[in-house]
Amino acid sequence: MRVVCPGSYDPVTNGHVDVFLRAARLFDEVIVAVVHNPSKPAGMFTIPERFAFLEEALQDRAANIRLDEVPGGLLADYCRRIEAPAVIKGLRSGTDYEYERRMEMMNRHLTGLETLYISGDAALAHVSSSLVKEVAVNGGDVSALVPPVVARALAAKAS
Amino acid sequence: MRVVCPGSYDPVTNGHVDVFLRAARLFDEVIVAVVHNPSKPAGMFTIPERFAFLEEALQDRAANIRLDEVPGGLLADYCRRIEAPAVIKGLRSGTDYEYERRMEMMNRHLTGLETLYISGDAALAHVSSSLVKEVAVNGGDVSALVPPVVARALAAKAS
Amino acid sequence: MRVVCPGSYDPVTNGHVDVFLRAARLFDEVIVAVVHNPSKPAGMFTIPERFAFLEEALQDRAANIRLDEVPGGLLADYCRRIEAPAVIKGLRSGTDYEYERRMEMMNRHLTGLETLYISGDAALAHVSSSLVKEVAVNGGDVSALVPPVVARALAAKAS
Amino acid sequence: MRVVCPGSYDPVTNGHVDVFLRAARLFDEVIVAVVHNPSKPAGMFTIPERFAFLEEALQDRAANIRLDEVPGGLLADYCRRIEAPAVIKGLRSGTDYEYERRMEMMNRHLTGLETLYISGDAALAHVSSSLVKEVAVNGGDVSALVPPVVARALAAKAS
Amino acid sequence: MRVVCPGSYDPVTNGHVDVFLRAARLFDEVIVAVVHNPSKPAGMFTIPERFAFLEEALQDRAANIRLDEVPGGLLADYCRRIEAPAVIKGLRSGTDYEYERRMEMMNRHLTGLETLYISGDAALAHVSSSLVKEVAVNGGDVSALVPPVVARALAAKAS
Amino acid sequence: MRVVCPGSYDPVTNGHVDVFLRAARLFDEVIVAVVHNPSKPAGMFTIPERFAFLEEALQDRAANIRLDEVPGGLLADYCRRIEAPAVIKGLRSGTDYEYERRMEMMNRHLTGLETLYISGDAALAHVSSSLVKEVAVNGGDVSALVPPVVARALAAKAS
Repeated sequence: MRVVCPGSYDPVTNGHVDVFLRAARLFDEVIVAVVHNPSKPAGMFTIPERFAFLEEALQDRAANIRLDEVPGGLLADYCRRIEAPAVIKGLRSGTDYEYERRMEMMNRHLTGLETLYISGDAALAHVSSSLVKEVAVNGGDVSALVPPVVARALAAKAS
Repeated sequence: MRVVCPGSYDPVTNGHVDVFLRAARLFDEVIVAVVHNPSKPAGMFTIPERFAFLEEALQDRAANIRLDEVPGGLLADYCRRIEAPAVIKGLRSGTDYEYERRMEMMNRHLTGLETLYISGDAALAHVSSSLVKEVAVNGGDVSALVPPVVARALAAKAS
Repeated sequence: MRVVCPGSYDPVTNGHVDVFLRAARLFDEVIVAVVHNPSKPAGMFTIPERFAFLEEALQDRAANIRLDEVPGGLLADYCRRIEAPAVIKGLRSGTDYEYERRMEMMNRHLTGLETLYISGDAALAHVSSSLVKEVAVNGGDVSALVPPVVARALAAKAS
Repeated sequence: MRVVCPGSYDPVTNGHVDVFLRAARLFDEVIVAVVHNPSKPAGMFTIPERFAFLEEALQDRAANIRLDEVPGGLLADYCRRIEAPAVIKGLRSGTDYEYERRMEMMNRHLTGLETLYISGDAALAHVSSSLVKEVAVNGGDVSALVPPVVARALAAKAS
Repeated sequence: MRVVCPGSYDPVTNGHVDVFLRAARLFDEVIVAVVHNPSKPAGMFTIPERFAFLEEALQDRAANIRLDEVPGGLLADYCRRIEAPAVIKGLRSGTDYEYERRMEMMNRHLTGLETLYISGDAALAHVSSSLVKEVAVNGGDVSALVPPVVARALAAKAS
Repeated sequence: MRVVCPGSYDPVTNGHVDVFLRAARLFDEVIVAVVHNPSKPAGMFTIPERFAFLEEALQDRAANIRLDEVPGGLLADYCRRIEAPAVIKGLRSGTDYEYERRMEMMNRHLTGLETLYISGDAALAHVSSSLVKEVAVNGGDVSALVPPVVARALAAKAS
């Protein structure tokens, strides 16, 4: 089965990588899809930067992970187009699930797209892109929480 | 008993209509109150548009549903003024309840206003105004999730 | 509207009484229904004792509260028989709601019975029959948490 | 990938069947594993009865679903033995997830077994074996919630 | 032990004061730390106003409470600098905990800072700075929910 | 401050030890109190066995941890007797908190006893006495999850 891991990945963290690698051991092909909306405000990193980080973080880690981009439009339409019957969502708490559940029901309604939930490493449950950025901007050391290329880019932003 | 269903209804969805009709079978009079704040940014639809959608969605559905407007001020004051001892809130999850609980305690403190919670149809739990708008804007078909008049208006916005 | 407050009431607490009185101010008639199953192990108090406690706790408090008994069978069938379109359930937390939600959906499926949730006084959120009994049996003073007649009966059990 | 749907299935419900069929569309092979403990009290139905219900409920529905039995021992050991890298768990609420999460972490610790969560049909969220049995025993009609063979068996128990 | 109660306190409420006084009875020294970010939009009250409200609300209430300011930077770094091994966080619901948990794990990762959770008075669970401001701006009476000096300042803003 | 860590500790796990050691770094004195009820069914290990495991697990780990026993009666009365103003409870999820919250409110009502919550190591969130026993009885290796003395005792029970 081909599955999709959608996200903004601004930037990718070790928590994301953990989920990608778990998925790559279970499924035939894992598409890491950078979802963004050209009409919305830009994030901290450009789309090419996010891709470069993902490429460097994943190279030689798993042969069946592929990167792609969803520039606007519905995720459900994208998944139908590439013939992926399910998306993978990482869960960290019961509240996460209740939030994701609504989007899942909408996707199922729109195209029959299914959602499979997977729990990441409990020791990384605090590692989100937004918290990592907030800590890095305030001078905290996040080098154990993100791939080395991201740690360097965050340090450059903070200085 | 007269009860109030407050909301911004920007726009009304089938999830809202389901709750209105359930309430109308249980209570003597149901006031659907469009709450808005003239000093805040406008939503997708104007107040007259939201009223028109509600009117068309509810006409001939229940004789004891009435529309009204709360243009600023406290909901608790409005309910006291119209002699409604309780508001009705639709619940979809435990997280919803914890969020609403705080406003409920505040309303009880302010005027003794009570809150009654009702669960809508589980098959519509994903249908919120904001998600419906997001999907419609991205070209998704939401015609099964909103009244026909709203489906047409959303399609016009998206095109 | 006639509503039903079902429970085992073994014994009634001030938390229950708070919900009964709130309901009595909102609805035409409130039926406090002692649900029990003759084939299951008895509780701490007999059914006649539970009724006597409820009667003493509620006398002269609200003219529109009535006591009744559901000795086995489905609550949904009982409510249809007495023409009550809804039950009232007290909520204390989001977890409570998720638990009650399943029984609510079953009741709606069986007979169309609706469920209305009401939050009791936050200061009584810890007052359940089981915790009150556990504390009383271990010598704790629960006289501020239950009607006087129950406090006396619990003290008699504990001594 | 081969996945395992473990459960006691005492008896199988339409909620279970919904999850089995979803899984069968996504994965190469789905093993429905009846887990039971010979040293614990028997349930309502014997293991041969539960198998018969599952067989009749699933026949001709999906070619890649297979039934099996886990008579004691650890589920993680069973999955390693049959070379299934993941179990599938149906989720209905955030509380469900928090409960399952602990067993998931234990299984991952023991043998590296992964857990994938899938949400069933929202309209069946109330359909559990235990609630179906309780309703049926009290004379309620559950024929829309379980396979026909189970509805007949429950009716026979109730009469 | 020295503990820190971090917050924006824009403005302090009776819910905050309740937590401060509980902490002051348990710990040697309680630092109420006004956290703000000079590069972010200002709140309703200036930092000197927030300090003045805290000082008046706390004067003569507990000798071991001290006020301080965290103008940007990481809370974890601040706590290490003043040799406070733990922060105190007030909890009102399970959802609160899941939110705070991630920041707690990050702080523990950064400097070993621990987090202790304490539940405030249940009867004040609805009293947050943001809800109090919203109610006051709309003409509601919040004088029972905030210190007198804050009630006066909010009334001045609303008029 | 003197704090109490109450539990049945049947048997102690590495999750418990993690909480004890965190508490010992924060508070002056930590009382690990083995709570049991002589009139209830015995657990897997006798009270002297549980004490022996705790002693061996904690020896030389922290000078300010002391063991004690609460043989029946109310925990709140015990804490008042030994002049401990607060108990420490380990939290693993929002659901845990909602459960503990009710006992906390009861203890505060009874004697003013406060409750402080602390989160253990996220990587040990699955390690409970009951799950460890269940796994060990079924032949699983739990030696990384409990002190060595407990691992040996569980292995002896399982064989």
